[in-house]
Amino acid sequence: MRIAIVGSGAIGTYYGTHLAHGGADVHFLMRSNLSEVRRSGLYIHGKGENFRVANVNCYNSTKEIGPCDLVIIAVKATSNGDLLNLIPPLLHEQTALLTLQNGLGNEEFLAEQFCAKRVLGGLCFICVERISRIEVKAYDSGTLAIGEYARKASKRTHAITSQFKACGIDCSVTDDLVLERWRKLVWNIPFNGLSLLAGGISTAEILADDRLRRATLALMDEVIDAANACGLALDKAVARVQIKRTEKLGAFKPSTLSDWETGKPLEIEPIWGEPLRRAAAAGANLPLLEMIYALLKSLGAKREGRESS
Amino acid sequence: MRIAIVGSGAIGTYYGTHLAHGGADVHFLMRSNLSEVRRSGLYIHGKGENFRVANVNCYNSTKEIGPCDLVIIAVKATSNGDLLNLIPPLLHEQTALLTLQNGLGNEEFLAEQFCAKRVLGGLCFICVERISRIEVKAYDSGTLAIGEYARKASKRTHAITSQFKACGIDCSVTDDLVLERWRKLVWNIPFNGLSLLAGGISTAEILADDRLRRATLALMDEVIDAANACGLALDKAVARVQIKRTEKLGAFKPSTLSDWETGKPLEIEPIWGEPLRRAAAAGANLPLLEMIYALLKSLGAKREGRESS
Repeated sequence: MRIAIVGSGAIGTYYGTHLAHGGADVHFLMRSNLSEVRRSGLYIHGKGENFRVANVNCYNSTKEIGPCDLVIIAVKATSNGDLLNLIPPLLHEQTALLTLQNGLGNEEFLAEQFCAKRVLGGLCFICVERISRIEVKAYDSGTLAIGEYARKASKRTHAITSQFKACGIDCSVTDDLVLERWRKLVWNIPFNGLSLLAGGISTAEILADDRLRRATLALMDEVIDAANACGLALDKAVARVQIKRTEKLGAFKPSTLSDWETGKPLEIEPIWGEPLRRAAAAGANLPLLEMIYALLKSLGAKREGRESS
Repeated sequence: MRIAIVGSGAIGTYYGTHLAHGGADVHFLMRSNLSEVRRSGLYIHGKGENFRVANVNCYNSTKEIGPCDLVIIAVKATSNGDLLNLIPPLLHEQTALLTLQNGLGNEEFLAEQFCAKRVLGGLCFICVERISRIEVKAYDSGTLAIGEYARKASKRTHAITSQFKACGIDCSVTDDLVLERWRKLVWNIPFNGLSLLAGGISTAEILADDRLRRATLALMDEVIDAANACGLALDKAVARVQIKRTEKLGAFKPSTLSDWETGKPLEIEPIWGEPLRRAAAAGANLPLLEMIYALLKSLGAKREGRESS
């Protein structure tokens, strides 16, 4: 299985490096990091996993990579427009597109642009951070759930999942991608939002602050209600499970906060906007989510205004 | 009536200058601005009011001012500790203490420290900003409601109110100070909080943003519920009245945002903390207020941490 990694942030690098380390035929699209990665390889540091991949296949353009069987998409959703040019050189008749991006709306975008039958989604319940151009730190290597877009799992889904498993990744097949997306939103909506709005603090700082911990739980509760309003059977107990897991992470910085601190665009629409719109259309009442979304949109717009002025 | 002004920010300067301009016997406590005010006087710029008071009685200490009949307190609530030393030199047997400070808890503090019978509160529904050391800009000269702490209005209340009215201030007596405090919180809780949390924006920018406008209304609704839970008859229509009034203000910057931008401590407890605690004790459920309070507390603590490290 010839695999392309499009988007070499923390998530793309983490999974791509794992796959390469496990012997898969992996090809990374890279930009600024290219020469350093060619020289030094890629490193993963985590609990029980510390390794380096020395000879990384990396490229400046997807034309150099050419057609692949699987394209793993891990760019920020705010760069989806770039995919219109990046993806076509990677396609043959059977190429599968697997998005590991955050939030809602990415499968739909890929389906519309490149044909629905190609599209799969992956939900990484994982906490990783790129700590240098060639190193990813894993706070929690977690799990990866892979499903087909708007279809039940097929032979292809199992083949891709097996490839990940063969490379040491705790990967499973899901028949309900949308349910898994919402399960992940139960985490992202509060932690990504509050970590930025509360002044730039880690998950550990949020949980150590009684008021912010209560705010986290209240938001989780709303997100579960939102998912249920959208017809998904997401249990209230998910919140408790997520909090417990997060307590073990230590001082993890959610991606939205990292994006803010490094001047990158914020993934506001897939994480807050699209879930809010879908749940509101289904009749849910989500005052906390609306408030958080309004504040983040304004913060993001304000920063763009400052940068362009 | 010999009057001392303790706290020469926008509010203290605005009312003190009006009183002096109208011929009252006013004595300002000042710190950094002293020499400039002595040299240049004080200016008020507003709709239909543009004037200067040339010979301002201003002092470096309350000992120099000595006993007064009325002490108008307009320091930030975060500086209430300073009042323990500032107030005593201003007191004679009958001295009245009128706090124009924001939020809840200030009358209680003064009552505990200096005897309840001295204490009055004033609610200024006013939008003013100090634009230089000697100038205050009034976006809305609004109204001032004065009431006795934990008592009905008396002869004294009317005498003080008359003094303000004689100096051109739209001032009235209230028999229910607490109700008026909550009426003002219906404005301060959303606008002061959201202007800071949304990235430093004015009231006009909040109202021009559909999402933030809805968030403002949702918060106002919660504050009215909170007041009602505390046994006060505050009508839901207050929200609409406040929004209408605010639309006329233009690009006004609430005090909490000004405090943030100028590195001053934030009045979080009187505006958000104390109302939340009182309403929660009365059984109200206030998820939005809790969230805003949690975020502001964290922001404030984070900044103090940065400054002290």
